[in-house]
Amino acid sequence: MTSKIARFFAENKPATPCLVVDVDQVEARYQALRHALPQARIYYAVKANPAMPVLSRLVELDSCFDAASWEEISFCLSAGAKPESISFGNTVKKVQAIQAAYVAGVRMYAFDCLEELEKIAAHAPGSRVYCRIMVDNEGAEWPLSRKFGTSTESAKELMLKAADLGLDPYGLSFHVGSQQLSAEAYEVAISRVASVFSELADTGLDLRMVNLGGGFPVRYRHDVPGIDHFSQVISHAMTEHFGNALPEMLVEPGRYIVGEAGVVRSEVVLVSQRGRETGPRWVYLDIGRFGGLAETEGEAIRYAIHTSRDGSPVGPVAIAGPTCDGADIMYEKAPYELPLSLESGEQIELHSAGAYISTYCSQSFNGFQPLEEYYI
Amino acid sequence: MTSKIARFFAENKPATPCLVVDVDQVEARYQALRHALPQARIYYAVKANPAMPVLSRLVELDSCFDAASWEEISFCLSAGAKPESISFGNTVKKVQAIQAAYVAGVRMYAFDCLEELEKIAAHAPGSRVYCRIMVDNEGAEWPLSRKFGTSTESAKELMLKAADLGLDPYGLSFHVGSQQLSAEAYEVAISRVASVFSELADTGLDLRMVNLGGGFPVRYRHDVPGIDHFSQVISHAMTEHFGNALPEMLVEPGRYIVGEAGVVRSEVVLVSQRGRETGPRWVYLDIGRFGGLAETEGEAIRYAIHTSRDGSPVGPVAIAGPTCDGADIMYEKAPYELPLSLESGEQIELHSAGAYISTYCSQSFNGFQPLEEYYI
Repeated sequence: MTSKIARFFAENKPATPCLVVDVDQVEARYQALRHALPQARIYYAVKANPAMPVLSRLVELDSCFDAASWEEISFCLSAGAKPESISFGNTVKKVQAIQAAYVAGVRMYAFDCLEELEKIAAHAPGSRVYCRIMVDNEGAEWPLSRKFGTSTESAKELMLKAADLGLDPYGLSFHVGSQQLSAEAYEVAISRVASVFSELADTGLDLRMVNLGGGFPVRYRHDVPGIDHFSQVISHAMTEHFGNALPEMLVEPGRYIVGEAGVVRSEVVLVSQRGRETGPRWVYLDIGRFGGLAETEGEAIRYAIHTSRDGSPVGPVAIAGPTCDGADIMYEKAPYELPLSLESGEQIELHSAGAYISTYCSQSFNGFQPLEEYYI
Repeated sequence: MTSKIARFFAENKPATPCLVVDVDQVEARYQALRHALPQARIYYAVKANPAMPVLSRLVELDSCFDAASWEEISFCLSAGAKPESISFGNTVKKVQAIQAAYVAGVRMYAFDCLEELEKIAAHAPGSRVYCRIMVDNEGAEWPLSRKFGTSTESAKELMLKAADLGLDPYGLSFHVGSQQLSAEAYEVAISRVASVFSELADTGLDLRMVNLGGGFPVRYRHDVPGIDHFSQVISHAMTEHFGNALPEMLVEPGRYIVGEAGVVRSEVVLVSQRGRETGPRWVYLDIGRFGGLAETEGEAIRYAIHTSRDGSPVGPVAIAGPTCDGADIMYEKAPYELPLSLESGEQIELHSAGAYISTYCSQSFNGFQPLEEYYI
C-alpha cells in the first residue's frame, strides 16, 4: 500500500467495501514497463480498470488503448484518447459496435475467424487487422486459452483473405493468459508467430506487427518475476526469431498497470467456528465473489490480506463473502491464516486490488450496492 | 414463454440483451405454491429478483419476504410490505444492518453461530430468532451447504442461549440447496429438525417454527418434479415427525416464484468454427457469465435456448459470452446443439430466466452495461 493510500484511509475513513487507487502508482508502472520494453507500444487493457482518472492519466502519458467494446472505446475518447491510439481488441464484436468504432475513427481490429473478418471488412473497410492465434496458457493463474484464437495454419489463410477483402493485414496477436508467471510462455508464442510471418513472406505478404498481449503478473501473496525478466526473455526471443527484421511490437497490459496501485478495504462481518470442534474459523467479509472478487473463482487469484492485528498469533481460516449464496466463498482450500483475535466489525485490506474488481462487481446481488471507488 | 411476453417482443423489439418478466406468471406461481402447501407461510426470497413490480405484486398477495440485506428490506418496505412480514434471513449481517432493520420494525432474524446471536441480542433485543442447521445438499444443482448452518448439537445449545439472551427462540431453518430435484432432501432435513425440537422440549424449551428454506426447482431443459410432489413429501414428513403438534411452517422460494416467469433475449454476436476441422462451433452471445448468467458457473444451471430456426438441423456448440474473459464460457461440456444455419446478428431466447440474472449482472465488465429489464 502506498503512503498516499494509507493517508487517504487515515484522513477519510471511507465506508466499506471500497477501492482506493493511487493514480501516481499507475503512472509509475506505465513508466516502468515503457522503460523495460522501449521497443513496444503500450496498449492499456481498459477492461482491467476503465475509471476516468486512470484513462486520463494514461492519455497524458501517450499510452495507447486496448478496448473490449464500443463502450470502452467511448470511455477512452472521453478521456481524450485519439481514435488512432485505440485498438478494438475483442475478437467478438457486434456489427453495431464495429460501425460505431469506425465512425469514431478507430482503424485497428482484432479477429480470429473468417466470420469476424468479413464483418470487419464490411463495416470498417480498409482497417488494419490482426489475427489472434491460440497459444498454450500453462503457467497462467487466470488462463484464457479455449475461448479465443485460431491455429497458425488458419491464421495464414485468414491474413491472405484479409488482403483480398481490402483490409490491411497488419499482424498477429496472442495471449499467454493473465497473471502469467512464466516468461517462457512468451518465448514459445513468439516462435509460433514468427513461423507464420516467415511463411506468409514466402507468399509475398509481409506482416508488420506482433501483439504480445498482456499477462504480466503482479505481486499478490508471493513474489513474481519482475518486468525486466519478461522484457529480456521477450527481447531475446524476438531477436532470435526475427533477426534484424524486427516487426512493430505491441503489448496490452492491464493488471500489470493498475493491479498494485489499488487497495480494497473491507469490514469483517462475522468470525465463527459455527459449532464445529475442528476445522478453520469462517471469516465473512463485506465484499465477496459477487461484489468484485470474481477472480477468486476456483481460488485462482489469491489476494494478500492485511489486518490491524498483523503480527499477532494466527490460525487457519476459510474466507467468504456477505451474500446468501453458497458459491460466495473466496478461499476454503488455499492456506490462509488470519489473527486469532480478529473480530467482526474490524477492517481488513486486500492489496494489489486495482485490477478487475470494480468492473466485475455485480450491480446489486443480495441488494448490496457496488463498492465505492476513490482515485487519488 | 407466456403469450404476453411473446407479444411484448413482437410489439416492442427491445434492444438486447434484455429480460422480460410476466408478473402475472409470478402471481400464478405464488398461488400454485400457496395451494400446494396451504399450511406454510411464503417468504419470497427477494434475492431471486428484487424488482419493484415483483415485490409490489407479492405484497398485494399478502406474501411475506426473506431478505438478505438491509437494502433488500428497504426494497420490500418501499413496495408496501409491513415490517412484520419480513425475515432478515442472512446468517451474516453487519451490526448497522441489524440496527436499521430493528428500527424499521423487523423482528425476525436468522443466525447459525453464537457470535451472530450475540449481535442480534444486542441490536435487535427481544426479536424472534431461528437457527440454521446444516443439511446435505445432494440433489441440488446450485448447492449451498458449506458456507452456512451449524450442527444439530450446536443448534440446541444456541437456542437455549437465545432464550438466555432475552431473544424469542422461535425455530429452526435449513436449506436443501437451490434447484433441488429431490424431495427426499426435505424429508431428511425435517427429521433432523424434529429431533432438535424434541430434545429441546425435554429441557423445557418449546420451539414453534420450522423454516423449510427454498430450493423448489423450475423447468430448464428438462422436466422437474412438480410442486405437488414436494408438498406431499414435506407434509408427510412433517406429520410423521411432529404428529399432531405441527409447528408453524415457513418456505422461502425465490427461483420457484420468478424463474419461469422470465425470458432473456440475446443477440448472437458470432458463430465460428475458428479454424478447427473438428469440434463444436462456438456461439458467442451478447450476454454471458458476467452479464447475469452467473449460475452457469461449472455449467450448473442449463438454460433452455430457443432460436427462430428451431426445427431445422442442429449440430453441437460451445456457448460463450461477449467479453474478452476466457472464463466467460457458459457451456462447453454440456451437450448443447443449435441450428446449423444460426448466424451472427440473430436473436435467441433463454427461458426460465426470471431468477437471479438481473442481480448477478456485473455493473460494467468490459464496458457492457447491465441488461435492460421489463416487467409486464
